[in-house]
Amino acid sequence: MAMSSARRTGRRPGETQTRDAIATAARAEFAAVGYERATMRSIAAAAGVDPSLIVHFFGSKESLFREVAALPPEVTAAMAALADGTPEDVGRRFAQMLVGLLESPVTRPIVLARVRAAATHPEAAALVRDLVSRDLVVLTSAMTDDRPDVRATLAGAQVVGLAFARYVVGVEPLASLPRAELVDVLAPTFQRILAGPLTA
Amino acid sequence: MAMSSARRTGRRPGETQTRDAIATAARAEFAAVGYERATMRSIAAAAGVDPSLIVHFFGSKESLFREVAALPPEVTAAMAALADGTPEDVGRRFAQMLVGLLESPVTRPIVLARVRAAATHPEAAALVRDLVSRDLVVLTSAMTDDRPDVRATLAGAQVVGLAFARYVVGVEPLASLPRAELVDVLAPTFQRILAGPLTA
Repeated sequence: MAMSSARRTGRRPGETQTRDAIATAARAEFAAVGYERATMRSIAAAAGVDPSLIVHFFGSKESLFREVAALPPEVTAAMAALADGTPEDVGRRFAQMLVGLLESPVTRPIVLARVRAAATHPEAAALVRDLVSRDLVVLTSAMTDDRPDVRATLAGAQVVGLAFARYVVGVEPLASLPRAELVDVLAPTFQRILAGPLTA
Repeated sequence: MAMSSARRTGRRPGETQTRDAIATAARAEFAAVGYERATMRSIAAAAGVDPSLIVHFFGSKESLFREVAALPPEVTAAMAALADGTPEDVGRRFAQMLVGLLESPVTRPIVLARVRAAATHPEAAALVRDLVSRDLVVLTSAMTDDRPDVRATLAGAQVVGLAFARYVVGVEPLASLPRAELVDVLAPTFQRILAGPLTA
């Protein structure tokens, strides 16, 4: 970790570009075919570099995955902003944030890479667990003291189910539902799960 | 298909046992590691048979998957029974059916095998789509004429998200929530999605 930081600090512009190209290619490859089928070779080919460069910049396939599957800081900031808002409309605000996250060409591959990888790879499953327990529990705890932990996992299940059905499997008409309509149908479910009566 | 039926008809008792052992091992293997990582060799080892016997009984890995990932007729019957009931309590009845399906040692591996495989394999993704469009649309159409197709896909997303979070990733406390409590927290969401106001 310390070595990698040192290396990063002393990196020349061309190296940063190569590193970014590998990260972008890896994210797309993990999202498209899952963790198992994405190989150092296929990622290198997509990035137009030699596989040895991936090892140079990222080490193993697992550490490469861990790095490219991290959500950008803006997402964590958006989740924190949600927790600062009122419980009365948290369902709609969460649905808007989520649809934005999944429709963005930057963050969608990250979420899908996590979902696909978690389906088959224990390391990725642990990453998904981490996300749920950290960010979502912060949000639900800010909304209510009635079982925020159960609520967080139910919301996480919703997120995964939506990502899976709309983007991985592509079930119609959900897959082509316009964003605004998607927010409309998701908002009431998230409202109840995040801040409403849990069992009625 | 005709050949396989002929072969099935003339099968001796020992052959049926071997075939069932392979099917059981395959279902468990697909559920545990996903379609990609499950191999003819690993399934044969788990069943205690030679890989050539899998080819003999099932042909390819894809046709083996297609056969073992089919839900038993009782499930289709249970879905049809749901459609015959009243819309007022369909959410709870569906949640009870679903939790029973996912907690049964017979059907859980089938559902998880589908979810895991669909995450990485197009053929399995198509199977998941088929299930959603056939059984769930029948149910939602019996409940309401307000966008039954959108409702069916939203319900399908819920099912996948729950299976994923509780059984594949094992997020706590959802993973160890008692069945009755799980039904209680799922019922209102399914009630709204299957028969309630979709956007409020």
